Amino acid sequence: MGTTASSSSPLRIGLAGLGTVGAGVIRLLQSNGDLIAGRAGRPIEVTAVSARERGKDRGVDISGFAWEDDMTALAARDDVDVVVELVGGSDGPALTLSRAAFNGGKSLVTANKAMIAHHGMELARQAEAGGHALKFEAAVAGGIPVVKGLREGASANELTRVYGILNGTCNYILTTMEATGADFGETLAEAQALGYAEADPTFDIEGVDAAHKLAILATIGFGVELDFANVDTVGIVQVRAADIAQADALGFVIRLIGEADVQNDADGPKLLQRVRPCLVAKDHPLAPVDGPTNAVVAEGNYVGRLLFQGAGAGDGPTASAVVADLIDIARGDVGTPFSAPVDALAKLAPAEPGGRMGRAYLRFTVNDRPGVLAEITAAMRDADVSIESLIQLGLQKAGGGSDDNEVLVAMVTHEGPEANVGKALALLDGSDSLTGEPLVLPIMA
Amino acid sequence: MGTTASSSSPLRIGLAGLGTVGAGVIRLLQSNGDLIAGRAGRPIEVTAVSARERGKDRGVDISGFAWEDDMTALAARDDVDVVVELVGGSDGPALTLSRAAFNGGKSLVTANKAMIAHHGMELARQAEAGGHALKFEAAVAGGIPVVKGLREGASANELTRVYGILNGTCNYILTTMEATGADFGETLAEAQALGYAEADPTFDIEGVDAAHKLAILATIGFGVELDFANVDTVGIVQVRAADIAQADALGFVIRLIGEADVQNDADGPKLLQRVRPCLVAKDHPLAPVDGPTNAVVAEGNYVGRLLFQGAGAGDGPTASAVVADLIDIARGDVGTPFSAPVDALAKLAPAEPGGRMGRAYLRFTVNDRPGVLAEITAAMRDADVSIESLIQLGLQKAGGGSDDNEVLVAMVTHEGPEANVGKALALLDGSDSLTGEPLVLPIMA
Repeated sequence: MGTTASSSSPLRIGLAGLGTVGAGVIRLLQSNGDLIAGRAGRPIEVTAVSARERGKDRGVDISGFAWEDDMTALAARDDVDVVVELVGGSDGPALTLSRAAFNGGKSLVTANKAMIAHHGMELARQAEAGGHALKFEAAVAGGIPVVKGLREGASANELTRVYGILNGTCNYILTTMEATGADFGETLAEAQALGYAEADPTFDIEGVDAAHKLAILATIGFGVELDFANVDTVGIVQVRAADIAQADALGFVIRLIGEADVQNDADGPKLLQRVRPCLVAKDHPLAPVDGPTNAVVAEGNYVGRLLFQGAGAGDGPTASAVVADLIDIARGDVGTPFSAPVDALAKLAPAEPGGRMGRAYLRFTVNDRPGVLAEITAAMRDADVSIESLIQLGLQKAGGGSDDNEVLVAMVTHEGPEANVGKALALLDGSDSLTGEPLVLPIMA
Repeated sequence: MGTTASSSSPLRIGLAGLGTVGAGVIRLLQSNGDLIAGRAGRPIEVTAVSARERGKDRGVDISGFAWEDDMTALAARDDVDVVVELVGGSDGPALTLSRAAFNGGKSLVTANKAMIAHHGMELARQAEAGGHALKFEAAVAGGIPVVKGLREGASANELTRVYGILNGTCNYILTTMEATGADFGETLAEAQALGYAEADPTFDIEGVDAAHKLAILATIGFGVELDFANVDTVGIVQVRAADIAQADALGFVIRLIGEADVQNDADGPKLLQRVRPCLVAKDHPLAPVDGPTNAVVAEGNYVGRLLFQGAGAGDGPTASAVVADLIDIARGDVGTPFSAPVDALAKLAPAEPGGRMGRAYLRFTVNDRPGVLAEITAAMRDADVSIESLIQLGLQKAGGGSDDNEVLVAMVTHEGPEANVGKALALLDGSDSLTGEPLVLPIMA
């Protein structure tokens, strides 16, 4: 059981990264210390810390901890059992520290979704080889114990599908657009002002953060190798207020959904992983999830549909997940990082994009002139896409007036092969009737 | 680690009770066997079974298992590591078997909420003394991993409140009444015909089953001794279609809610545990939970609000929870049955009923004659209950006509001491204006 499972002596933590989450972990370990010691069977104590600036005021007293200028030195300290990595970034110092932790005979707890998505297999192999723990509950869906929920709670099941709302920034923006009718740019600026979006929001709004988390959930849920590179990812930048209004009229809301499943093709099982803004029926459990909340649904062959919901980010919830991992380690639970040993994870080919049956929402912005609708509907017919409903309406200008030259055409398709929608768009590619890229949003089944 | 944590030899199960859940466990272990062995690190195999009738057709082949006429004999078998108790009943054979399991050096997995609610402390003490596992994920909220979610997932938090929809039968009845407008008796009969309610539904509709589960959640969530006897329990029998309609008009649904919290009174912390039909605002995460679904909310001082939702009963979900416990044991996780060793659980006095602040829905059925409203509102005034809204309406007879002699008066109070509502009802006690017991439903905060 490595170095971490001894009986009643304190579990000693070396903490790298003293941002809001790092400070939250220190605050949590102090304020709930007695309760944690009772549950863990022994105290959990920070012994050493490292961050960029030593003197910065973080609202917590770090004077009682040893300081390391070089965070990698935490991995070599004799008074550290577990390294907690809260630095972030898929590579660089975080990865160097993590490798050093296992080399130094320590366990590792991290909130770093990017690093796990990119290097989780390598790190898990290192952890297993040394008999050390590698835990990352905080990397997926903040405070929600969904890594544990899938890895242990649903462990008796063959999961058929895992999906959910995995990025609080996008969910805040989409549900605010829904509530206010405002457009994307304006709502993003407001989210940044309120601290719900970062100064550089690219990773969030482009879906990359959700893709990191989805790849981790797929690995745990299906017992497959991590394959972040094949997560088919589209963010929320193209979603307009008009799309949300159209979806609403049709009985749907729009949410950024990360979704993974395994489908058995003729030549073996394939892994589908995609992050997309989707139309979600208003009576679906994910529809009422608003603001920065996260929610994950897992469907198993015995348990049916499980839903886990809670705060997807923030220092308190993230610290809660980090410390839950530490309590598990203090209790002697080393386990395997994923649901099975890393060498037993199946290597699945990615599913062909477009190989599924589904319904979709399509939105075009077009020049308002005769024949445009005929051109679009002909392309649909020629690609064998069956239209369930269609609406055309003038686009509102920012000032409130309508633009005489541009209109919006939105439609919902009947269920059919997703690839056919792609064929229809290819037929329309280059048409000078279109004033912008068409938007295609899957309708969640 | 007792007898159950050896490395790669099979974990051997003695299974007592071959009803739908017992048969479900066998089916699950067979159909997902390879996957389970991969995740558990070793196979999980049933070696011996016991039930009332040996020859009965259960849809699963039990010919490969040893048979015991006396289920207690499972506890003495050398080829059994873990006894799985699926017999039910708080005492009697289930309790005898459970005690015998620990005496025989076995671990125990059970779905028996009544037995854990009544005898969980004694059994946990026995398990801890022998170094054996006692696990009961299936006892609370069926397939939802909420015991694990609170015990491990939220373990870093001081929980401030745990509440939820804990009985699928009641939730099916209430949400069906909501959808159809039908009254309680009719809906219960329909639920029985469809298998959502038992032939003798007393434990469900009187709230006892929810109270069993709530007492277990309170113990795990707050680290306190089990105190089932002090769960203040009211079932759903008094809820009328008219109450649901009134709640709807006010922006609420009615759900049977089990709720526990710890409040610090002048003379120390007190444990509130109650099961009540409650008015739940339509935008609360529990409002959309319909049919036999269960959902549990836990509020922690760092994680905020967590929601766990899924199937609360049924052979598949229950078997999923039973086998998840077995996988934990196979992985070597013995742990403590509750969130802390049984001798470290705090013994809390029960909270005084009525000691809280809250809003309430009150419904009276009264004779339609002058002065009745004045009598009721005077009682409210004299007991210092402030009325937010009030409605009086004629009661619909079964045939659709209105009864000229009986009317319904429903009101919602402003926030105030709950005890005052009791005082108002005491003032009205014995009044010949009332044609039946008043109904008081808390409005969930």
